[in-house]
Amino acid sequence: MVPVDHDLDLHAEGPALTAALVDIASVSGEEGPLADAIERALRRLPHLQVTRHGNTLVARTARGKQERVVLAGHIDTVPHAANFPSQWDSERVRLSGVGTSDMKSGVAVQLRLAAALAEPNRDVTYVFYECEEVDAARNGLYLLSRNAPETLKADFAVLLEPSGGVVEGGCQGTLRAAITARGARAHTARSWMGKNAIHEAGAILDTLRTWEPRRPVVDGLEYHEGLNAVAVSGGVAGNVVPDECVVTVNYRFAPDRSQDEAQAYIRDLFAAWPVEILDSAPGARPGLTSGPAADFARAVGGTPRAKLGWTDVARFAELGVPAVNYGPGISEISHTPGEYVEADPIVAAEQALTAWLTA
Amino acid sequence: MVPVDHDLDLHAEGPALTAALVDIASVSGEEGPLADAIERALRRLPHLQVTRHGNTLVARTARGKQERVVLAGHIDTVPHAANFPSQWDSERVRLSGVGTSDMKSGVAVQLRLAAALAEPNRDVTYVFYECEEVDAARNGLYLLSRNAPETLKADFAVLLEPSGGVVEGGCQGTLRAAITARGARAHTARSWMGKNAIHEAGAILDTLRTWEPRRPVVDGLEYHEGLNAVAVSGGVAGNVVPDECVVTVNYRFAPDRSQDEAQAYIRDLFAAWPVEILDSAPGARPGLTSGPAADFARAVGGTPRAKLGWTDVARFAELGVPAVNYGPGISEISHTPGEYVEADPIVAAEQALTAWLTA
Repeated sequence: MVPVDHDLDLHAEGPALTAALVDIASVSGEEGPLADAIERALRRLPHLQVTRHGNTLVARTARGKQERVVLAGHIDTVPHAANFPSQWDSERVRLSGVGTSDMKSGVAVQLRLAAALAEPNRDVTYVFYECEEVDAARNGLYLLSRNAPETLKADFAVLLEPSGGVVEGGCQGTLRAAITARGARAHTARSWMGKNAIHEAGAILDTLRTWEPRRPVVDGLEYHEGLNAVAVSGGVAGNVVPDECVVTVNYRFAPDRSQDEAQAYIRDLFAAWPVEILDSAPGARPGLTSGPAADFARAVGGTPRAKLGWTDVARFAELGVPAVNYGPGISEISHTPGEYVEADPIVAAEQALTAWLTA
Repeated sequence: MVPVDHDLDLHAEGPALTAALVDIASVSGEEGPLADAIERALRRLPHLQVTRHGNTLVARTARGKQERVVLAGHIDTVPHAANFPSQWDSERVRLSGVGTSDMKSGVAVQLRLAAALAEPNRDVTYVFYECEEVDAARNGLYLLSRNAPETLKADFAVLLEPSGGVVEGGCQGTLRAAITARGARAHTARSWMGKNAIHEAGAILDTLRTWEPRRPVVDGLEYHEGLNAVAVSGGVAGNVVPDECVVTVNYRFAPDRSQDEAQAYIRDLFAAWPVEILDSAPGARPGLTSGPAADFARAVGGTPRAKLGWTDVARFAELGVPAVNYGPGISEISHTPGEYVEADPIVAAEQALTAWLTA
């Protein structure tokens, strides 16, 4: 394959720029061509200082303002599901395709602002990062926070994750745990000599089926927890009563619980079985009641709501930077084959952010 | 690895020969070295006509007798479970290791008879076959019955499967079926947008957990059915509500049910879900009330009982050859890490069969 040098026109309207970004494939781990295109476009802008870290790009204004804000977005997508390249409907209202909502429409808004705002009222750091949709260890924002934390120093951060054009505060934490049912092997012809671990795992599934989600209100926003089996495996051979069955669960917990509290809750809920915590990430309280987050919410308007999915807002929270999600995409259809974004919210988000950064 | 030519001493006592056979690893599909050793030993015996079919060996006397019987046993084992090579206890009463009961002790008896009985009172066909512990399509006896059915022609057959030195009549049938719970994918952060197929599969496991086995009496022998999950799998990714979960079950059914009846029973029991029958094999009624099976049972003594496991007795039944299980191993501990066999029953089985074939 001959590499193609994609050229991005930052003067194109947000919706058209979104389509152009979607059509440069960038499944996690394969962001190179898109990062190249974004880098070339940013380096043409004389008011920005551009640095590259792997396939992550950082572009900063340096106007010596008292306040600095970060506008951040990831440039990778989940794998294609027969939804690439993008496709407009006949009225050019709705753009379908992988990454339209999550989150190349947000990246388009970032790029449009980067090009248009040579003299913003606050200094701005634009971050375009890789590998958000995969293991935390490969996440470009995580790598920046480890390798070049000074690039993320700011008074406030906006992640342009899909939020339907509404300010979404905080985020829920997430952990995965492996719960193991044990039994004793036997030949299936004399199964009463053994103990079937898969049958035993039925009680683990019963716990999941009868679980009632908490919906706590934190800093004025209502969260909605989730607890799901995301994998199950067991079995030795077609004629053997299996002695082990592992159910992997994903617990999405509201930000009134710490990681430690969430882990203790899961260990307690499944106290009848060995529980191994596989990974976990903290939530972030919304913090919209005061400070720059409250100022931002007032500036862009609307009624803030709770962010249910885990986002890198939590990573900023760990760095001590208040952060919110605010982007034109629709989170409910992210990661689905039918993912789409509408044109108007892309323009509206750009206008609201422009007003905030130029008022 | 340098291939080793194993040498079998058929003059060694049955228990010692069993240990020698166990110590030539022969997990299903890897029977070559053991088949080679058995072939070399058989070809040294001038009263036998030996043919090889893959890793299956057939050795026949040809004395022109009116009656011909088959003595058959498989030479493969299930995978090792830290129970290889074999180990004697300090009194040399108990030999532990993979395949000791199922069924290299039976194979040892076959080989001892093959060597000792140059002039049996009935013509004898000894069959040592491969791949009994895996897919029916690879079973050496099945392949013989398809490719060289004349080699199995006989008036009666004894399978030296583990039966605790008791004549076991008939066998239970077996079928495997895949039962699929379906759901709808969603991001786990908003799991209520989807439907968790693994949680749905809990109801399949409930059916298994509450199932009561039938114990019908057939031709005077009591059978004992079994229904077990032998595999379960489901899961898309660590943050996705899964849309499919497959439970594979193994139904062991008494020989008063045909394969068709057994399949209909399973489809009915799991009528709420799609059921795919993966494979099935019929049972065999014990038929110990008359004919050569009754004669054999009288000759070796003891009280016959029902065979619960599926064995190739059913394959002989399909060929119209009455057959029973009779071997020194213990079926209840087959396929377990603690599998063993005792020395005395190996000698006793050899003596009883010698008496029957020389009276």
